[in-house]
Amino acid sequence: MLTLYFAPGASSMAVHIALNEIGVPFEPRAISFAKGEQHSPAYLALNPEGKVPTLVIGGRPLTEVAAILFYLAKRHPEAGLLPRDDFEAEAEAISWMSFAASTLHPARRRGIEHAMQVYAIADEKLDDKEWAIGAYSIADIHLFRLFWRLTNTLEIPGGTFPNLSRHYDRMMSRPAVRQTIEFERRIGYELPK
Amino acid sequence: MLTLYFAPGASSMAVHIALNEIGVPFEPRAISFAKGEQHSPAYLALNPEGKVPTLVIGGRPLTEVAAILFYLAKRHPEAGLLPRDDFEAEAEAISWMSFAASTLHPARRRGIEHAMQVYAIADEKLDDKEWAIGAYSIADIHLFRLFWRLTNTLEIPGGTFPNLSRHYDRMMSRPAVRQTIEFERRIGYELPK
Repeated sequence: MLTLYFAPGASSMAVHIALNEIGVPFEPRAISFAKGEQHSPAYLALNPEGKVPTLVIGGRPLTEVAAILFYLAKRHPEAGLLPRDDFEAEAEAISWMSFAASTLHPARRRGIEHAMQVYAIADEKLDDKEWAIGAYSIADIHLFRLFWRLTNTLEIPGGTFPNLSRHYDRMMSRPAVRQTIEFERRIGYELPK
Repeated sequence: MLTLYFAPGASSMAVHIALNEIGVPFEPRAISFAKGEQHSPAYLALNPEGKVPTLVIGGRPLTEVAAILFYLAKRHPEAGLLPRDDFEAEAEAISWMSFAASTLHPARRRGIEHAMQVYAIADEKLDDKEWAIGAYSIADIHLFRLFWRLTNTLEIPGGTFPNLSRHYDRMMSRPAVRQTIEFERRIGYELPK
């Protein structure tokens, strides 16, 4: 059995999208940052940083977006979230996700100018490729969630990030993506600072 | 052919250790941050963020510590840097590396108090395990490099991080680790801020 601890609109949305892409049953448990639920002793026992997401798999917690996405893609190869038997493609996906988690995700904390710079790098890296590593993968889900958050918290003039914008539209055409956003929106976003 | 772009003492040390653990031939190319070599057009073409490490594999650049470590471990399974055919263990290793890259690595920028907090979480996560995911893996190399940097840039009172300190000693007993540190020390560290 899978239990997803998430906060609406937070990084956990990437894992939520992957679960909906796969179509595997899971129990969604919303954590309210506003109420400080991430600091409860019960939650800290699962995720000592008090962050989302945590995916509890048969009683064992797995943390960090990139790791959970990798786990789900490998456990459900039929969902096509990673090329099969191709560790070079897996390494490319991990490279994108590491860039997303360590550079794009914390960029806002360092100011809007820095954020615009690193998203410009992401836009250039993506270039005119349809998907980050060529084929659709967990790297696209991670990248999308971050660009989705940027565009939902900042006014970005049209044309600033042409490749990321096209990627965003491509992602929004996927039913699993729209379904996840709609589900989380109904609970109510608590976008982190 | 493999070419490693690294800066002595920087994050690239983790990849450098893995290459020495494996014993595969590679060309080491030192980048001087002090001279701004990371901003040269030739280097930015390989790594648009101007960061180290970059591993060029048969002409193709791969970036991000976690991704390069994963690639090397999968390409050289005989080196025992990841459990074989065990995607759950791989996900655990990616979880540790993602935590290292996105939480431990940038912690110093947020002040010493914050750094001490997140290393305390790492110490607790490690607990009394010999290695991060049970068996020795790339996660240990990534974790070690960050704790090595912390202890080389801050005076940490003995006993502050007992589990990380034991892990550090265990890592320092590995010839590949000592060999890498000695090689980079001879060139001269340029520890990033």
